[in-house]
This record gives sequence, C-alpha cells and structure tokens, in this order.
Amino acid sequence: MIFRQLFDKTSSTYTYLLAERPGGEALLIDPVRENVAQYIKVIEELDLKLVMAVDTHIHADHVTGLGSLREQTGCITAMGGMTRAECVSVHFKEGDKLCVDKLYVDVLYTPGHTDDSYSFLLPDRVFTGDTLLIRGTGRTDFQNGDPAAQYDSLFGKLLTLPEDMLVYPAHDYNGMTVSTIGEEKRHNPRLQVSGKQAYIELMNGLDLDNPRLMDIAVPANRACGLLDVA
Amino acid sequence: MIFRQLFDKTSSTYTYLLAERPGGEALLIDPVRENVAQYIKVIEELDLKLVMAVDTHIHADHVTGLGSLREQTGCITAMGGMTRAECVSVHFKEGDKLCVDKLYVDVLYTPGHTDDSYSFLLPDRVFTGDTLLIRGTGRTDFQNGDPAAQYDSLFGKLLTLPEDMLVYPAHDYNGMTVSTIGEEKRHNPRLQVSGKQAYIELMNGLDLDNPRLMDIAVPANRACGLLDVA
Repeated sequence: MIFRQLFDKTSSTYTYLLAERPGGEALLIDPVRENVAQYIKVIEELDLKLVMAVDTHIHADHVTGLGSLREQTGCITAMGGMTRAECVSVHFKEGDKLCVDKLYVDVLYTPGHTDDSYSFLLPDRVFTGDTLLIRGTGRTDFQNGDPAAQYDSLFGKLLTLPEDMLVYPAHDYNGMTVSTIGEEKRHNPRLQVSGKQAYIELMNGLDLDNPRLMDIAVPANRACGLLDVA
Repeated sequence: MIFRQLFDKTSSTYTYLLAERPGGEALLIDPVRENVAQYIKVIEELDLKLVMAVDTHIHADHVTGLGSLREQTGCITAMGGMTRAECVSVHFKEGDKLCVDKLYVDVLYTPGHTDDSYSFLLPDRVFTGDTLLIRGTGRTDFQNGDPAAQYDSLFGKLLTLPEDMLVYPAHDYNGMTVSTIGEEKRHNPRLQVSGKQAYIELMNGLDLDNPRLMDIAVPANRACGLLDVA
C-alpha cells in the first residue's frame, strides 16, 4: 500500500493519500483547499491517478479541497449520507465500502462531533476524523454535535476495534501523528469517564470559543469549497 | 516495532521514537528541548523505557533535548564521532550499530550539511537528518558544511539504498511526513544535477539567511541543550 500523511500547518489538519499500488488509483481523505496543488503534484510524482476524494464531515476550521480536486482531476467526491453538502457526487453510508483499486475502505457512521461524521476503516488502521483525536475527542457544541451520539460512536464502535489498530485523526495540535485504539482507551483523558452521562457533562462543560474560520468554512464546505464567503 | 513520528511546529523538526516491543527499550532521534515533557509522557504511556537519545548532527535551528532527557531519564546520549558536542556519553561512527533491545540501527556517516551529520538505517527506513530532505537537501553554508561531501553522502550512500526504502528526514516545511529513496531520486530538484561540480555550484549559489536561532542553538547544542545562551 502507498500511504501518505500530509499536514496543513495553518489548521493542523491531516490529509491522507492512499493507494494500493504504484501506477494505480488513489483516494484522498480530508483535503485542504489551499494545498490542492501540492496533492496533485505528489499524486503525479507517485504515478497515481486520483479517483476519489472524501471528507469525514463538514469541517468548520478549514475549507475543503473536494470541489477543486474534482474540477482539476475529474475525481469522484464523496461524503456521508447525512451531510448537507449537496455538491458531492456520491453519498456513502454505514456498511458501504469505498473501492479504490483493490483497496477496500469500510465506512463507519460515527456521529457526535457533527451529525455527518464518518470514519474509514482498513484492516490495520482507522481514519477517525474529529470523532476520536489523539488524547482528545472532537467538540460537540455546534453543527448538530451531540455528546451522547459521540459516546456511542466512541464506546460502541471505534473503541471496540482491535487494540493495535492504528488511529489516524483529522487533526493534531501537539505534533502527534498517529496513535492506537489501545493507547487511546488507556490514556485519552476524555475516555476515562464512568459512563455516558459523565461524558455528556464533560463535553457540555467545555465552553469553547467558535473556530476562527467557522462562518467562512461551513458554508464554503457545503459547496465543496467552491464558494467564497466574504 | 513501535514507531512514532513527532512534529515540533515551531522549528518544523521531526523527532522519532523507536522501540522493538511494548514494555521494552526505546530510542529517540533528534529530540527538541521544549518537547521533552511530551516525549517522556508518551514513552511512559507506551510502557517503554528510554535508553538512548541521539542527534543526527548539531542543529542550528532548535535546541536539543539530549541533556534534559539524560538528566530526567538517565538515558545514554549519543552523537557521531565528528561532533563538537563533548557532553554526550557515547560517540558512534560509520559502521556502528545502535542496539536498543533487538532493534539494530546502522550508523552511516553522511557529512555535507555539517561535518558531524549522520544517518540511521533500519531494514525498511532511513533517518536522514538534514542530509536528505523531502524534495530538498540541507544547506551547506555553515558549521563546516561542504557541498562536495554532501554530494558524496547523497549519491555515494543514501541514493544507493533500495528504491522503496522509506525516508524520514529531520525537518519538513511543507507538511510532508515521509518519502522514499526512489521518489527522491526522481523528483528531488536538488538531485537532478549532472554531476558533483553542478551540485557544488547549485548549493553555493543558494545565498540563504542564517537560521534565526543559530547563535543560540549551536552553542547550546554543543552543551547538549543544557546551556542557556542569551
């Protein structure tokens, strides 16, 4: 497998490039609009063809590269069925497989950070978007966020994966690049709660400022990043 | 193998944590002083014991964590025989192996960026310090840098490694986390030269400003980061 983790320093976003073989088809997860030229260059240099670009959810902290990638490469753009981004070409749902050459990516519906949050599963690694972060979890106080749903996504789905499963989140703000399910179970402070009610109280008590780019990013991302909002 | 790539956003430095097994001994490559508490926490959480910390060379852009790690964990600190950091406990040379549990890391002497630049080789990956960067090479205009020596380190050593060998550098400024030898051979603009003389002329023509922290970092790093220079 060809696997590249790419970091956007401005928004601390991780974008993932996956392909099964040199010369083959490629998938991008959570591309950032400002870096589209870089992705296209790397994809060309690796002798790959981008066939699909997906977002784990509608981001509030950066503008997606989906629309620009579709315009420039002709790739399919896909998001979960719950999204309000009507611009994507395909909607996936829990249980679907994203097929890119012989790479089969399982789709998990993991709402909570937003109601359109999905995770993507390969045999040895899971892309958890903003649902499960390294030593953290995504905030649940906007875009139909719901701490009870996030608790179920975490404890009912993601944390039931094998302990040595690699965790690749959509962000990290502390220079960490990867974790494992076992490590997060044991050391993620948000996951050391006594039950769902305690988790809801923890998340509802966070009292966070809105993301700086939220009023720009959310409407722009509903248009796949092709809308410029002043 | 346990492998973690850690990123220091301020200096765009990559630090690498390696261990052969859970519960075992660990090695840190190129730790940054400001992040020592984070490294110690991750090492504890992964149930590892830090036994060795090494620098690929005397850095000019950040202060090393070697001294602080030795003070706090009792680990061995090691650098290459050519270094002027007399504070380290062990000096290694070309052909040596760093042994951490059953992890055997081969030492390559790869001068050019500085005269104390070394690379570290595992069967599937090489840690290239500032000798080989992703789509770049380390500057050669200070600290006894030498473009002719760097050409020999690159073309005579690093680029003779297998094409699919993963390349993990000490820095990246563009959000790239990893490359391969084959990719750098084909797409690194600095490596598309016609010969050694052309490489020397390319490097000597760069006309770069000195790193912002150079006058602080170099003397501090000669003291393993335990000296504060005003």
